[in-house]
Amino acid sequence: MKKYSLGIDFGTLSGRVLLVDIENGNEVATSIIKYRHGVMDEYLCDSKKKLPIDYALQHPSDYLDVLQAGVRNVLKESKVEPSQIIGIGVDFTACTILPVDKDLTPLCLKDEFKNNPHAYVKLWKHHAAQKQANRIVEVARKRGEKFLLRYGNQISSEWVLPKVLEIVEEDDAIYDACDKIIEAGDWIVSKLIGKESRSSCQAGYKGLWHKQEGYPDNEFFKSLHPKLDGFVEDKLSLNIQSVGDLAGYLTEDAARLLGLKPDIPVAVAYIDAHSAVPGVGINEEGKMLAIMGTSTCYMVLSKKEIFVEGISGVVEDGIIPDFYGYEAGQASVGNGFEWLVNNLVPERYFNEAKGLNLTVYDILNEKAGLLNPGESGLLALDWLNGNRSILSNSDLTGCILGLTLLTKPEEIYRALIEATAFGARVIIEQFENQGIEIKELYATGGIAKKSSLIMQIYADVTGKKIKIGKSEQAVALGSAILGAVVSRDGYETIEEASKKMAGIDDVVYTPNEKNQKIYETLYQEYKTLHDYFGKMENEVLIKLKNLKNKVLRGENNV
Amino acid sequence: MKKYSLGIDFGTLSGRVLLVDIENGNEVATSIIKYRHGVMDEYLCDSKKKLPIDYALQHPSDYLDVLQAGVRNVLKESKVEPSQIIGIGVDFTACTILPVDKDLTPLCLKDEFKNNPHAYVKLWKHHAAQKQANRIVEVARKRGEKFLLRYGNQISSEWVLPKVLEIVEEDDAIYDACDKIIEAGDWIVSKLIGKESRSSCQAGYKGLWHKQEGYPDNEFFKSLHPKLDGFVEDKLSLNIQSVGDLAGYLTEDAARLLGLKPDIPVAVAYIDAHSAVPGVGINEEGKMLAIMGTSTCYMVLSKKEIFVEGISGVVEDGIIPDFYGYEAGQASVGNGFEWLVNNLVPERYFNEAKGLNLTVYDILNEKAGLLNPGESGLLALDWLNGNRSILSNSDLTGCILGLTLLTKPEEIYRALIEATAFGARVIIEQFENQGIEIKELYATGGIAKKSSLIMQIYADVTGKKIKIGKSEQAVALGSAILGAVVSRDGYETIEEASKKMAGIDDVVYTPNEKNQKIYETLYQEYKTLHDYFGKMENEVLIKLKNLKNKVLRGENNV
Repeated sequence: MKKYSLGIDFGTLSGRVLLVDIENGNEVATSIIKYRHGVMDEYLCDSKKKLPIDYALQHPSDYLDVLQAGVRNVLKESKVEPSQIIGIGVDFTACTILPVDKDLTPLCLKDEFKNNPHAYVKLWKHHAAQKQANRIVEVARKRGEKFLLRYGNQISSEWVLPKVLEIVEEDDAIYDACDKIIEAGDWIVSKLIGKESRSSCQAGYKGLWHKQEGYPDNEFFKSLHPKLDGFVEDKLSLNIQSVGDLAGYLTEDAARLLGLKPDIPVAVAYIDAHSAVPGVGINEEGKMLAIMGTSTCYMVLSKKEIFVEGISGVVEDGIIPDFYGYEAGQASVGNGFEWLVNNLVPERYFNEAKGLNLTVYDILNEKAGLLNPGESGLLALDWLNGNRSILSNSDLTGCILGLTLLTKPEEIYRALIEATAFGARVIIEQFENQGIEIKELYATGGIAKKSSLIMQIYADVTGKKIKIGKSEQAVALGSAILGAVVSRDGYETIEEASKKMAGIDDVVYTPNEKNQKIYETLYQEYKTLHDYFGKMENEVLIKLKNLKNKVLRGENNV
Repeated sequence: MKKYSLGIDFGTLSGRVLLVDIENGNEVATSIIKYRHGVMDEYLCDSKKKLPIDYALQHPSDYLDVLQAGVRNVLKESKVEPSQIIGIGVDFTACTILPVDKDLTPLCLKDEFKNNPHAYVKLWKHHAAQKQANRIVEVARKRGEKFLLRYGNQISSEWVLPKVLEIVEEDDAIYDACDKIIEAGDWIVSKLIGKESRSSCQAGYKGLWHKQEGYPDNEFFKSLHPKLDGFVEDKLSLNIQSVGDLAGYLTEDAARLLGLKPDIPVAVAYIDAHSAVPGVGINEEGKMLAIMGTSTCYMVLSKKEIFVEGISGVVEDGIIPDFYGYEAGQASVGNGFEWLVNNLVPERYFNEAKGLNLTVYDILNEKAGLLNPGESGLLALDWLNGNRSILSNSDLTGCILGLTLLTKPEEIYRALIEATAFGARVIIEQFENQGIEIKELYATGGIAKKSSLIMQIYADVTGKKIKIGKSEQAVALGSAILGAVVSRDGYETIEEASKKMAGIDDVVYTPNEKNQKIYETLYQEYKTLHDYFGKMENEVLIKLKNLKNKVLRGENNV
């Protein structure tokens, strides 16, 4: 009898259930269930009342639908028996949190709170707590809080504490009424095993938790708001388990919901991006994984804990046990190319694509691929959605230099690609300069699998070999690997499991020496502009953003 | 019997004959004749032999076609009798030169030279003599030639001397064979009156001539090339007449060609842009005229001769007698907007325009007009075709800052408009800082007449009132005014004639105080970037252009 593991991956718009043969990693069935409520960023459920700007909420019942329908779908499609499922792993976007009662019931499912936005899931990209994030950074700096160092001296508005402070300041009834505030990934695992579970991955990267030092001091929370006295013990938990640990066993109730047998081992939750590290088979230092899509996440393992300025975070056991896991990110990659295609590519390119039965991306890749590095005369800064790593400034914006009357859309497309590659190199150099060695790049995600042009440019710009994860769904595969590790019928370690279950494509992108030389020149120019505009030698980008905001708010004093 | 004047305007692609009632400036008939050979920038006439890059030649017989057909057309259309034509004025693009023999016959019309590109008309935008222009500047600087000061310390590759040096260096047989090298405007006037005529406008702005000091010293020409010993006396002329002077009278031959009576007075030639100054009725200091189209020319009159760094030139009697006429220019205005429309505007904008029976410019103007200054968050540098004034550097390129994932084409369109307005303000301030006062702006040309959005932005950015010339063809009208001035049946002075024959629209664009304030802020940011990138605090734009050229030439050492 073959043995299978389930990787359940909760993304931004849908959940994905992946059924994997633990012997060889064969992905025997996948089911993708779209969330019925999607992202609620304008209206709450079916109400007509507008949500404030920068809101992004979700409905927890959508996640349960994924569990119920998705698992049944893969069993049916694969004809695998429930008894053949030996483990379950779960990953989720983060920080995505919700307030729950003693029975783990989300407050938003209760009648008295169903019209209250703060009772719902606050999705990772809920950005309404920027004010709170700013104040947290200010207070932490004033108090000399050391934990800031682990997060590149910044606190993102996406994280737990700004989102909780937002609830406390704007509707403390919710704060009072909830028993716990929990990451959605932890909540799913808790629901499956019938008791509270907390992951080192979620807590470390999004909750300010540290394996040796725990959470920040209670005095710090109190200084933010008197109500936060006792916050960690009351609303979070001191019981944090490492990624790769067994969280518990599937309850009878949960087994009924999923259509499985009870007592299947369930792994501690993962953050989705981090789950891709075992999903491409990385188990050692010196390899950086880029998860490339709308934006790009970078993951690096190291035996050393070093405070790298401007990265998103470093967490012991946060990605793979016994390693410090580093995270960094670029806020605009695929979404930048999409912006170009949707707004600045003329009809004739679409017609050309249609005539050849291709996508407009194919046409742009083809035309841009005919250009040599340097040939367009263009140089761009990749900050169309701000800068998330190194400069950590969401008010920065994109720039294009070198435009002429002959500049073509494919040249701008290539310049945007190159800019993201230069941005990647800045991150790599930041790690290397601080003593975290990066020998090779691994990549996964839509862009990595689809565009050889982009991957070759990244190899040429960074001067590193790039290997591509074999699986099209490395994130869900990473969760399935955890499922196989927590099972007594699976593997002893993540390393062992991922060696069997994950791997890389045959194609490896190797830097082209001639292109590398030209990009070396261009990168130096990029770096000069990066520092000039990004390190505030010239504050013009921030001034433009501020002016824009004032004009949009109708302020007279501009 | 009503009296009429003919303004004959030779543009880049066509010639225009305008018949004007001298009493009130009524434009009673217009005929536009396209040049049969257009601009020859790829092939010479019907030959298959490729021309070198940056060539732009014309065929002089096309100009004669304009004279022959155009004048007959306007007479026929208006039913005006040939005897009612009391004067003729001619304007032409410049520097547009051709080699001619003793009888004023262009060398290219002779069998032995008809396959020789150097025997043809070199149009203003023939840019193949950049190498020669660079050397001329170098030699002039080394020799401490004072004339450079009048031209903002630069010599354009478009001017007479680089184009002649190109002939001398590349095919001295043409140089030897020709009797004279003459501006096409002067050549037309010469053909009409049967003897050589030279204008202060052409000679001053394009030929390095000065009313008091004459041409540069013969030693200077000799130091460029031994063949240029005696260049001015041999191939040019020392007999230069002022704009507004009578050149001579229509010969019998010319009268036959045009279908007119002989002995009609013909005015000394004008450069086309300069002709618009009387064409909008400017006769005094303090008023700057912008001729806005593909690019923009700026004309200012002053009683003072001041050497303004970075302008195109200052010429005594060059625009209106008894004034020093100043010229400056922007190389990319309408052509920048056209670049955007042709390359970076998506189908839906064109569909929207079609549905409303409008042009895509109308749609862009409408959408951009809904934006407040500062609202787009964008700031651009208007150097898509280099910088022609103040920085005088054709290798500079355009830049856009402030791009986000929400940036729309109309926002980029507006940013490009604003950038050209900021560029205009830099020129205005350069004049004002050097002591040439500019109280009001006048504008003419396609953009001035068509886009109230653009004109309002210029008013808001410059803080000056802008008046728009009434005539749709102010350039040709300016020539007709000269025709009326040189006639004994017309006016005594250009001032008197233009008061009667030219004027402005009722609409005046007045700066909006609120917008002005925002643009003041944006202009300061523009200025900082202008100096940073344009005055080589950061040479990135030049480096990008050089790298591009090297890559395109396939050089290995980049």
